[in-house]
Amino acid sequence: MAAPRIYMDWNATAPLLPEARTAMLEMLDRTGNASSVHFEGRALRAAIEAARRDIAALCGAAPGAVILTSGATEAANLVLTPQFRMGRTPLRIGRLYVSAIEHPAVREGGRFVPENVVSLPVDGDGVLDLAALDAALSSHDRASGLPMVAVMLANNETGVLQPIAAIAARVKAAHGLLVVDAVQAAGRVPLDLPSLGADFLILSSHKIGGPKGAGALVAAGEVLMPAPLIRGGGQERGHRSGTENPMAIAGFGAAARHAAGEIDGRMARVAALRATLETGMRTLAPDVEIHAAGVARIANTSFFSLPGLKAETGHIAFDLEGIALSAGSACASGKVGRSHVLSAMGRDEGEGGLRISIGETTSAAEIGRVLEVFGKIAARRRPAGAAA
Amino acid sequence: MAAPRIYMDWNATAPLLPEARTAMLEMLDRTGNASSVHFEGRALRAAIEAARRDIAALCGAAPGAVILTSGATEAANLVLTPQFRMGRTPLRIGRLYVSAIEHPAVREGGRFVPENVVSLPVDGDGVLDLAALDAALSSHDRASGLPMVAVMLANNETGVLQPIAAIAARVKAAHGLLVVDAVQAAGRVPLDLPSLGADFLILSSHKIGGPKGAGALVAAGEVLMPAPLIRGGGQERGHRSGTENPMAIAGFGAAARHAAGEIDGRMARVAALRATLETGMRTLAPDVEIHAAGVARIANTSFFSLPGLKAETGHIAFDLEGIALSAGSACASGKVGRSHVLSAMGRDEGEGGLRISIGETTSAAEIGRVLEVFGKIAARRRPAGAAA
Repeated sequence: MAAPRIYMDWNATAPLLPEARTAMLEMLDRTGNASSVHFEGRALRAAIEAARRDIAALCGAAPGAVILTSGATEAANLVLTPQFRMGRTPLRIGRLYVSAIEHPAVREGGRFVPENVVSLPVDGDGVLDLAALDAALSSHDRASGLPMVAVMLANNETGVLQPIAAIAARVKAAHGLLVVDAVQAAGRVPLDLPSLGADFLILSSHKIGGPKGAGALVAAGEVLMPAPLIRGGGQERGHRSGTENPMAIAGFGAAARHAAGEIDGRMARVAALRATLETGMRTLAPDVEIHAAGVARIANTSFFSLPGLKAETGHIAFDLEGIALSAGSACASGKVGRSHVLSAMGRDEGEGGLRISIGETTSAAEIGRVLEVFGKIAARRRPAGAAA
Repeated sequence: MAAPRIYMDWNATAPLLPEARTAMLEMLDRTGNASSVHFEGRALRAAIEAARRDIAALCGAAPGAVILTSGATEAANLVLTPQFRMGRTPLRIGRLYVSAIEHPAVREGGRFVPENVVSLPVDGDGVLDLAALDAALSSHDRASGLPMVAVMLANNETGVLQPIAAIAARVKAAHGLLVVDAVQAAGRVPLDLPSLGADFLILSSHKIGGPKGAGALVAAGEVLMPAPLIRGGGQERGHRSGTENPMAIAGFGAAARHAAGEIDGRMARVAALRATLETGMRTLAPDVEIHAAGVARIANTSFFSLPGLKAETGHIAFDLEGIALSAGSACASGKVGRSHVLSAMGRDEGEGGLRISIGETTSAAEIGRVLEVFGKIAARRRPAGAAA
């Protein structure tokens, strides 16, 4: 009998939570269009609005400030635009400043032309260089429009938490807008939009145990909003047209409810498992480099490089042993390329990194098995120092 | 015991097909990200590619020419843009010409600025005025870029089929691009992209019995493509970024397979039911106006006005009797406004129209019950000719 697969790739997508599954199945056979005013339509509308309240509660926002989208990438493309409105008054953004370690959905710059997207450096641990942010904001040309800064709360590859409060203070002083990709942070650290000081948060359903096909742009208020990306029937109060997907939204709502609860207890358990993993890896291969292990990270992520092991080779070796993990992120279809995060950290020696990302249903036995395989792979790699 | 609800709003959303439901449930518990290269990711990728082939087969296209989106509205916003590429060569579109009866997702003009979106008139039956199209194309300023024409194959409110072959010949002669919204036509008339002569088709999953949350832009070839609307991880060969939704896509694929099969037999049955309905309505209320009854329509749609009955009032009256139908379309969140389609046809006397749209599981008994309620409502309306 084949051993069950071990899933260590929660940052790519989290397993579906039982409560999200239940919420989805409740919607599966409900016919109708949530924009219809008949009984069937109104029932779907009520389910969507209930989910919206749960998503708002996850990040301390008002339900009316939640714009539901097909996912976080769409939400990023919605908010990253030079064209905003403050109520009815147009507001122009001149440039977008992104950290060099943002997800491609942010790094690509949405609707900004490439020459107006500026990349900000990070240090060797992958933490934003605040002095570089200061320099960028002080040299920003206000005549072109306000500055927009986009920095993720937790990095998808390393798990490193960014100093959002310090960033927010600087952006506010420069009268700019701050967009925070909270996709990997949600459910792993408490999220409170007002105390973060961000103007917009980006959320993804499937990264917190909800289904794929749902995400949100959450605004700090209901007045300042980006020009719509998808226009048509006027759903989401005109901010995002297209027939709503009540099944995905209901699942997202259930996952948001779960993600908001008992973060400390869940993450303490996950942190203990990661500590076991990282201690074990260091014992088995003292030369393993665990990236950003010395700075604040979300509790579930371990990103490491093993001298003499190419990430692609390691990824395949783990996969053949029944373990799903990731070489870098899963963002680009089927590609295993260099990690832009490691490059930005000045740590890409050409071998890349492997990411183990776990979650609340990960077991100690699974960590044990991963260490067993890690030991085998570490033992048979090309000796450190040998020519490539 | 309450009588079961009768669903007569298939053009807003069709009930989920059993085969789409099965395909979705097969994906529900499969963890992973289709962009991951490990076993879990590859299995999801295979399911997506199988669905893509079914969607391509529905309209006689190559699988590589199918761009999967979150729905038809997103697909419309993707294709309606001044910026195209022919391979690596940029291609500029100067103006967008849309019929006055397009769905708002098309009428809003996507990424064109409003002054470059031109509305073309229709006749009293809601059929595009070909002379107006000729005039528009002959006065098009080629220096601004090529012309793009967007005309739907079947209208969502009246069901009227547009003369796409005649339109395609004119657009081709003007070296323009033709976009055809086939959302309501799919599964109801045979679809063959090459013989239609369109450059792009827009499809929706949930209008053909698949789930909400999936749609497609289908191109005539793989070379001429619009600038991406949603950028990021590079999914859909760079044309549409964002983690794929395998459950919705698999359901869409199953629905596409169903929609491609035995159209004649299914639609003959639906047409017979609609004939019973329309004959019955005319008998019960000889002054009923069934819009566009004299021209080619898809078989499932009946759009009518009853003198002395406001659409909004009629809609509520049917709903209270357990019958879900629509006043105009369901495109705009909870709004029951004037029908832009009736206005374009010169037929909007202020009372609006009611749409009954049926499908393959509609029964003769349901049509009988709808006629019974229709008779009651027709009998108690404000007498024709009385002041409003």
